[in-house]
Amino acid sequence: MSDDDRFMTQAIALARENVHRGGRPFGAVLVMDGEVIATGVNGVMETHDPTSHAELVAVRIASHKRQSPILKGAKMYASGHPCPMCLSAMRIAGITDIAYAYSNEDGTPYGLTSAALYADLRKPLAEQEMTFTYQPLRPAGEEDIYEFWKHMQG
Amino acid sequence: MSDDDRFMTQAIALARENVHRGGRPFGAVLVMDGEVIATGVNGVMETHDPTSHAELVAVRIASHKRQSPILKGAKMYASGHPCPMCLSAMRIAGITDIAYAYSNEDGTPYGLTSAALYADLRKPLAEQEMTFTYQPLRPAGEEDIYEFWKHMQG
Repeated sequence: MSDDDRFMTQAIALARENVHRGGRPFGAVLVMDGEVIATGVNGVMETHDPTSHAELVAVRIASHKRQSPILKGAKMYASGHPCPMCLSAMRIAGITDIAYAYSNEDGTPYGLTSAALYADLRKPLAEQEMTFTYQPLRPAGEEDIYEFWKHMQG
Repeated sequence: MSDDDRFMTQAIALARENVHRGGRPFGAVLVMDGEVIATGVNGVMETHDPTSHAELVAVRIASHKRQSPILKGAKMYASGHPCPMCLSAMRIAGITDIAYAYSNEDGTPYGLTSAALYADLRKPLAEQEMTFTYQPLRPAGEEDIYEFWKHMQG
């Protein structure tokens, strides 16, 4: 079995165990230099936390472990196609190599797809299903927070 | 002072306190039915967690507090324009009303903008700065994980 198949088999096994525990069928394995540095499962049912997706959980665990928000060079093996939140989280962490075993098309008959959210988020913000308001408040008598941050950087 | 200005003033004050503590200039206040249900600040410097953005932290705290991943009807007051990860997290949580005090344009001179990531994520996946591989592994002799999940739903 190739390394790719071995890591993906583990991601799918994590998803399966999660369903046994009453969770959703999503698992993820994060690999760096041929070693698993973190795993995650979807914990939304258990924790009520909407951000508790398998990939995001794995990113959090790996960054805590490595004491770095940057996980460049890591590869994510996700049982399901990452949603836009997890994709963005990986990009922010510098992870640019992602494999997934179930596509959004595979998940569509089960309602396990983020295709609609992807489609909406690709629209200009003004056309998305939300209200985005620029409210440029600048409290009087206080240094601008971005200037303050810049000064603190020294 | 309007409610909107009061909540945004709080978000900016949180950002300012966070800079005092060595963090980044981002704060967020999540409001439901006129009450603050959670706040968050950017904790990346302190926790090394790349997902520790102000809005995502506020969503996590609110969902734990309310024991629900759905925060429909809540409004997010963010000091800075939400990044794609936080925007997606809010959408997943059903939050569709967002105000921000600093735009990506306001942040550009300080490098505090997610405009480039937004632009990249709007491209088709195949054109984005990452490798996305469909690896449709289906372990032999085991029930399909999505079918298994469907059966567990009863």
